[in-house]
Amino acid sequence: MTLHRFVPTEYHNVIGTFPPALTIADGDTVVTETVDARGFDADGVQRKHGPNPMNGPIHVAGAEPGDALRVEILSMRPTRDTGWTGNVVSAGVVDPEIVRALPPRAVTTWNIDRETLTVHLAEPVKGLENFVLPLAPMIGCFGVAPKLGQAISTATSAEFGGNMDYRLFGPGTTVWLPVAAPGALFFLGDCHATQGDGEIVGTGIETTFEVTVRLSVEKRSSIVWPRGETETDIFTIGNARPLEQALQHATTEMLAWLASDFGLDTIAASHLLGQVVRYDVGNVYDPAYTMACRLEKKWLKRT
Amino acid sequence: MTLHRFVPTEYHNVIGTFPPALTIADGDTVVTETVDARGFDADGVQRKHGPNPMNGPIHVAGAEPGDALRVEILSMRPTRDTGWTGNVVSAGVVDPEIVRALPPRAVTTWNIDRETLTVHLAEPVKGLENFVLPLAPMIGCFGVAPKLGQAISTATSAEFGGNMDYRLFGPGTTVWLPVAAPGALFFLGDCHATQGDGEIVGTGIETTFEVTVRLSVEKRSSIVWPRGETETDIFTIGNARPLEQALQHATTEMLAWLASDFGLDTIAASHLLGQVVRYDVGNVYDPAYTMACRLEKKWLKRT
Amino acid sequence: MTLHRFVPTEYHNVIGTFPPALTIADGDTVVTETVDARGFDADGVQRKHGPNPMNGPIHVAGAEPGDALRVEILSMRPTRDTGWTGNVVSAGVVDPEIVRALPPRAVTTWNIDRETLTVHLAEPVKGLENFVLPLAPMIGCFGVAPKLGQAISTATSAEFGGNMDYRLFGPGTTVWLPVAAPGALFFLGDCHATQGDGEIVGTGIETTFEVTVRLSVEKRSSIVWPRGETETDIFTIGNARPLEQALQHATTEMLAWLASDFGLDTIAASHLLGQVVRYDVGNVYDPAYTMACRLEKKWLKRT
Amino acid sequence: MTLHRFVPTEYHNVIGTFPPALTIADGDTVVTETVDARGFDADGVQRKHGPNPMNGPIHVAGAEPGDALRVEILSMRPTRDTGWTGNVVSAGVVDPEIVRALPPRAVTTWNIDRETLTVHLAEPVKGLENFVLPLAPMIGCFGVAPKLGQAISTATSAEFGGNMDYRLFGPGTTVWLPVAAPGALFFLGDCHATQGDGEIVGTGIETTFEVTVRLSVEKRSSIVWPRGETETDIFTIGNARPLEQALQHATTEMLAWLASDFGLDTIAASHLLGQVVRYDVGNVYDPAYTMACRLEKKWLKRT
Repeated sequence: MTLHRFVPTEYHNVIGTFPPALTIADGDTVVTETVDARGFDADGVQRKHGPNPMNGPIHVAGAEPGDALRVEILSMRPTRDTGWTGNVVSAGVVDPEIVRALPPRAVTTWNIDRETLTVHLAEPVKGLENFVLPLAPMIGCFGVAPKLGQAISTATSAEFGGNMDYRLFGPGTTVWLPVAAPGALFFLGDCHATQGDGEIVGTGIETTFEVTVRLSVEKRSSIVWPRGETETDIFTIGNARPLEQALQHATTEMLAWLASDFGLDTIAASHLLGQVVRYDVGNVYDPAYTMACRLEKKWLKRT
Repeated sequence: MTLHRFVPTEYHNVIGTFPPALTIADGDTVVTETVDARGFDADGVQRKHGPNPMNGPIHVAGAEPGDALRVEILSMRPTRDTGWTGNVVSAGVVDPEIVRALPPRAVTTWNIDRETLTVHLAEPVKGLENFVLPLAPMIGCFGVAPKLGQAISTATSAEFGGNMDYRLFGPGTTVWLPVAAPGALFFLGDCHATQGDGEIVGTGIETTFEVTVRLSVEKRSSIVWPRGETETDIFTIGNARPLEQALQHATTEMLAWLASDFGLDTIAASHLLGQVVRYDVGNVYDPAYTMACRLEKKWLKRT
Repeated sequence: MTLHRFVPTEYHNVIGTFPPALTIADGDTVVTETVDARGFDADGVQRKHGPNPMNGPIHVAGAEPGDALRVEILSMRPTRDTGWTGNVVSAGVVDPEIVRALPPRAVTTWNIDRETLTVHLAEPVKGLENFVLPLAPMIGCFGVAPKLGQAISTATSAEFGGNMDYRLFGPGTTVWLPVAAPGALFFLGDCHATQGDGEIVGTGIETTFEVTVRLSVEKRSSIVWPRGETETDIFTIGNARPLEQALQHATTEMLAWLASDFGLDTIAASHLLGQVVRYDVGNVYDPAYTMACRLEKKWLKRT
Repeated sequence: MTLHRFVPTEYHNVIGTFPPALTIADGDTVVTETVDARGFDADGVQRKHGPNPMNGPIHVAGAEPGDALRVEILSMRPTRDTGWTGNVVSAGVVDPEIVRALPPRAVTTWNIDRETLTVHLAEPVKGLENFVLPLAPMIGCFGVAPKLGQAISTATSAEFGGNMDYRLFGPGTTVWLPVAAPGALFFLGDCHATQGDGEIVGTGIETTFEVTVRLSVEKRSSIVWPRGETETDIFTIGNARPLEQALQHATTEMLAWLASDFGLDTIAASHLLGQVVRYDVGNVYDPAYTMACRLEKKWLKRT
């Protein structure tokens, strides 16, 4: 169980089957520093253009198509004192006719207090004088090489993961991704200091992090879409438009999980989900929207 | 501030401009017993066919088009020992190709324990032997007469409210509805013992309740879509398909609310919502889907 | 087979179960003059506010719920020398981000030449100096009282018909509508001198017409959505959002029609539609979008 | 103006930046034989697995990012006596609840008569005894390497083209694609003997063709989405879900074209499109749906 300190020499704007930047054993841990969504590092130097430059790919020995890659997000440590956001809600989240009245889009700077682990606007904004947010780090974009040898922009997402922008992808969460290429070829980047549901301003608070993940192989998995587990919940992810298609993918994946690991047939799973499921909107900004189907673990018993 | 005990002599399957069944003063309280979604009362007698028979309309003196009707849901007391649900997730919430494999739809009975305020399946289901849910009452369908003299099925929803099936419409919540007819003409029914996000089995746990609401008029309101407030949150509602259109309506209404009552312009509101908004899926089952845009009150200061 | 000349004394902005303005026998013909979408008549007098004031309801003796009302559009004669349109594409038919750049919306006047049966812009527009269109009359909004006693705004549409804005609803077309109220209760109005697919400027060329329709009852029909027939084609209509839901309704209705009247099971109908179906966009402007599923009659043989 | 006879030695299931299989000069013509959607050639030998194996890439000298590649489809000659289709409409084009009743999916063979240029079912189907279709060849999937070095499955489509399945992409049509990689890198395959709107059985009549195209470079183009021209019409393409987003892309591209080449500002273009636009559904089957915005050339005058 080696710990690798991974310093990228190049960054990728697409997730695909490229020569590994790092090769590790099953179960190894990787510490790596990410640049922000436009490629600026902790020192404010632009290392790569956007969208969402990725660290990777990391080849995990033994991972084969049909397996799952388990990604344990062990920690995320902010490495910069500032982050930035879009300053206006996106044209896609308001009634079309009021888009005419939206102010022009610009970028706003936020200060990150790395002692108190809080975030606040760098310049005062009327009505938000006391708006101080707890740091709630998350990885906006990560995934494994997609099937068929595809290479897909880090602006979007699909079964392999990608730019999902879901706030539960933070420290303490374990994620499973469907492996489609030998070695899985894991990428990550685009971390946020915090983010609301939907990423409706087109960004979270975009900044740089030192991220620590442990990567392990689960052989012969049947997962189709990303799955996750926190201390209290399990969840599945669908990435598509419209939102209901993302919800369909996530719900279908949850039904499969409840059947295989928890012994619930479709009717039992319907009784359970029907009364206790939660749906979270990851983003309604990217080319593919993200919806999570989430369930508290207290309702479940592994078989 | 009179308390009215309202016993309907007829029930409505549409919400529209009908002769009042009860006329009350601004600020009065009404206690009334609802039938379930198929019209069965607490004694198991069917009083009206579905969908969702409503008690009402209640004329609130002084309410005029352009006002808002404030609805305080003061209490919901279950009046029956059983409820029922659909037993299979709806065809609209899973991938289209797996619909072929869904079991046929039937109705399942749940027992409601009115002492412990819990709910459980009446017949054992493998894997759910210990599935006991706290009672979490909510009003599935309620609203005021829509504009233009329309009369709209209680299967669906729009600006006036209707069949929104959102789990936060329970005791302790205050709701505002846009008045479009003199007297507002308030209807309610279709109460659930509990329900998950999305109403994905096509029902909550459908049963009968004694509901107590206080109805008040707020003059010259500018609300377009329903708004709500709980002990901890404010929220706005959009009803439409696809889900992103419902989300657009809800977000647009929230921006209007943040501007008028909290002094936040579009940019300030974008900063706030961008980092802390939550979206809840009311239902993805009815003809119009329901999405709530929700915000914790701790971030807000009324101006 | 009487011919009735029907002069409304009032106009309706909703389609619902109201006292008949005219009662006719099965198979009778009605001639009536419609006002435009904002209620102006042939003399420029506003007789009713919008949206889409309707002539009706016309009670057709013998029509009962479960029947179909056959509507033969026999002729449409323009009664005014001008029509009007919106002058900018709607915010819903362009990429959301470019809505910011759309010019403000205004109304444009068109001249209708009733001798040559052509239409052209009243004021010259650069690049469209020679833009002369043939008159292609169509009824934008018509339908029968919806089920459950609903009364629905003439801005929208559903199974009963309504504001479908489909260009094939013109002279020579026969339409079938599902009867839900005794007497069917037929309404019509909102006629256009011509219109492109999608009604993307929010209007056709809105004007007044003298419309002649023959109304007949077909007993015990199984139609769910509107159906139509022209000299060359049959078609079915779905009204919903998103567009693919409208397409699903229309296709489902066509499969039912091909089975009942043409002896084609699902596989045979799939072979046929798969290679020769045409989909037409009625409107992508109204609250419910309209999609037609159309098939040339040369491929069909009634059984 | 050389004519190249291109015989692929390998086929691609993704469209991306790969080493050229053929390099040609600007304006050269290429003749090449395509395999069917599952990779079977004219002799029934499977040369590659699906989806949609492509011939290519063809490097066109001088093409640079920011240019357009003009693709003239000069001829398509069928090279096999059979084609095949799916035999049941897809689950996505009917009401979700009736998917339960769809028959299981299988493959059906059609005979292609290369003398009469017609197509008919190989085995008789009740009700379709006389169903003989004219051959109407089209290229289901073609495009150029996408931006950012992406490599995208031939099951789907985007700005670069791809699996659009639009019936007007046949002989006589000229298409423009936005170049994103040096040499453009053109791919084509997945040809159909004919196909209805929407590709609703998941296929056209899938077979092999000898295709002749002329490829030319137009420098410094501003196109974002594919454009096309037939003898009578111009059209633009949007690829996305839901259908209205595809329609938004196509309409936005058409507005840009009308401005740059025909001197019509947004208002003039709105007047024109509002009354004469046609929308065609390419497919509602693939991961991205395809919508064409089409306009008869008789309304236009190049500036």
